[in-house]
Amino acid sequence: MKNYKVALLAGDGIGPEVMKEAVKVLKLVEERNADVAFELNDVLFGAAAYFETGKAFPEATKQACDEADAILKGTIGLSHEESKKIPVDEQPERGALLPLRRRYNTYANFRPVYLPKGVAHFSPLKAEVIGEGLDIMIIRELVGGLYFGEKETGVDENGKRFVREVLEYDEDQIRQIITVAFEVSQKRKKVLHNIHKSNVLKSSVLWNEIVEEVAKDFPDVEVKNILVDAAATYLCLNPAQFDVMVMENMFGDILSDQGGGILGSLGLMPSACKGPEKSYYEPSHGSAPDIAGKGIANPYSMIGSVALMLEMSFGMEQEAKNLWNAMQSVFAAGYSTPDLSKDGEAELITTAKFGDLVCEAL
Amino acid sequence: MKNYKVALLAGDGIGPEVMKEAVKVLKLVEERNADVAFELNDVLFGAAAYFETGKAFPEATKQACDEADAILKGTIGLSHEESKKIPVDEQPERGALLPLRRRYNTYANFRPVYLPKGVAHFSPLKAEVIGEGLDIMIIRELVGGLYFGEKETGVDENGKRFVREVLEYDEDQIRQIITVAFEVSQKRKKVLHNIHKSNVLKSSVLWNEIVEEVAKDFPDVEVKNILVDAAATYLCLNPAQFDVMVMENMFGDILSDQGGGILGSLGLMPSACKGPEKSYYEPSHGSAPDIAGKGIANPYSMIGSVALMLEMSFGMEQEAKNLWNAMQSVFAAGYSTPDLSKDGEAELITTAKFGDLVCEAL
Ligand SMILES: CC(C)[C@H](C(=O)O)[C@@H](O)C(=O)O
Ligand SMILES: CC(C)[C@H](C(=O)O)[C@@H](O)C(=O)O
Repeated sequence: MKNYKVALLAGDGIGPEVMKEAVKVLKLVEERNADVAFELNDVLFGAAAYFETGKAFPEATKQACDEADAILKGTIGLSHEESKKIPVDEQPERGALLPLRRRYNTYANFRPVYLPKGVAHFSPLKAEVIGEGLDIMIIRELVGGLYFGEKETGVDENGKRFVREVLEYDEDQIRQIITVAFEVSQKRKKVLHNIHKSNVLKSSVLWNEIVEEVAKDFPDVEVKNILVDAAATYLCLNPAQFDVMVMENMFGDILSDQGGGILGSLGLMPSACKGPEKSYYEPSHGSAPDIAGKGIANPYSMIGSVALMLEMSFGMEQEAKNLWNAMQSVFAAGYSTPDLSKDGEAELITTAKFGDLVCEAL
Repeated sequence: MKNYKVALLAGDGIGPEVMKEAVKVLKLVEERNADVAFELNDVLFGAAAYFETGKAFPEATKQACDEADAILKGTIGLSHEESKKIPVDEQPERGALLPLRRRYNTYANFRPVYLPKGVAHFSPLKAEVIGEGLDIMIIRELVGGLYFGEKETGVDENGKRFVREVLEYDEDQIRQIITVAFEVSQKRKKVLHNIHKSNVLKSSVLWNEIVEEVAKDFPDVEVKNILVDAAATYLCLNPAQFDVMVMENMFGDILSDQGGGILGSLGLMPSACKGPEKSYYEPSHGSAPDIAGKGIANPYSMIGSVALMLEMSFGMEQEAKNLWNAMQSVFAAGYSTPDLSKDGEAELITTAKFGDLVCEAL
């Protein structure tokens, strides 16, 4: 009997709604597997936590995460206007999400741009651009770069406001993410696109040096170096050429969201954030305050994050595969949610109903 | 009689080929306007200059640029492998392009994502996503941020290689680009999308403060704040919602190239780089070493840069408009080049022939 502790950080906006569906699925997986039990621990996180406790990442939540085998996170964040009610450093991104990433050193962020032919109609790209479907794995460094470098805001001797923030990496940080990327490439198509900006950034010069060094240990993987700006062009023009892409934190933030655009929605992009000891899982989309509480958000990306957790933290590969298939089959049967599809394009159902259908299909 | 001095920096790769077509067009415009004369001064720039003089931006070129009323630049850069033959700091980007931008403080980079319905078929996006065509003006800050901040590469006390580079802005730098963006918005649809990452970057926090301050002087312009990652999603999903977008340097590098992807090619994106006294004009695409010398590169983006120069530096708005129309009419007549179109989709012609047809249409 395996007992897995999972901390649930539902968060803000649509977070609690989609988390409910994730829990439904987890309970079903537990029911089906006599030798597995999930101990779920619901805790406060994000703006919700701030308004209740004065801290976006309260002590009790830290403890629950410390004790957990894996962490399942919903979404955090408020609207541009609402977030002004919280001091800058307690805002959910700076006060909760980034500290979570740092606490567990989740340096490897996996963002699949996975668009099987059957759901290719969601994409804004022409059918001939997508071809046989997309299956890209974006691997983003998640605990370095501009996100965690020193920051200084001030007023200079002439009374002028200024700001300085540091993009920093050392060779170990780069090597660990690059190694992960090569390992993943080796299990897939053996082509690794290395995204960089070495014609301007010195950090990319070091990054590329390490890529060349690590490449020696993976002679069967072909490395293709591509500038980040060119990568943004080609993700639109010819995404099917990519298999695994690796890049630093900020580039990964932007290009993975471009990937979400290509899928037709960030609602179709789950993600895994892997640390040396513990990993956490989250949808790539935001908290969508404009549609929160309406029951129209698609839980695909949240349930997909459960699938990634089952596979990567608990070694339940078959259950993960079944879950992906169940989700695809709901779309294939003609169902969708109002955030993804218009009336007439699909039978529109609620967040909860989508979760129910995934459970039925399982 | 107006006499305009134009420095021509053809550069590397396909630069010289497309520059030839720009010169053809300029000579025709001169012929047609009895009161205008262009004094063209061809000078070395980029890797070509480095191999000939040991400097990517030689003194003679600096002088020619100093004396010019406007600068027309082709493309610079070598392939990833070739560029290793040049010391990092003399590589054409760091040794020529960035110094050019800094020398003339060309802080405002204009990159039109302009896709009239007639050429919408070039786009990888579905016709219904493009709708009535796209007409977005991306305004990118061009002389600040990570591009020009201090950089440090070294080895720490434990023998570990590291790199640090600084993203910096002061309020004046931000205010000048934001003001340009508001001015442009005011002449267009009066909606300005402000692209930022204030949930992580302190530079975006200051940036957004200045946007709020400058906004007070433009009460008729509506500001929409959007995170850079969300902007990357929406540029794919619903680009037609954007009119003017303003952003810092690195964000602009990535999103404008995504814009090129949406157009179907960076070959369709000219650009203007405006400084307080002097501006320079360049295609947004790279030097495309793989197709250089073959005569298959489309000169649209280079000739479009001439149009921007005529309008913005010489006040020849009507001539600029005629030039845009002439280029569109060549496409409309069914012609294209092999870098943009496949056989069967259009009548494929050479770079030179495309330039000839534009001249005929003029
Ligand atoms: C919410 C924000 C801090 C976060 C990031 O920038 O990493 C998000 O955009 C993401 O991609 O996970
Ligand atoms: C060549 C390179 C330095 C340049 C940049 O990054 O600005 C280019 O990509 C551009 O967008 O003009």
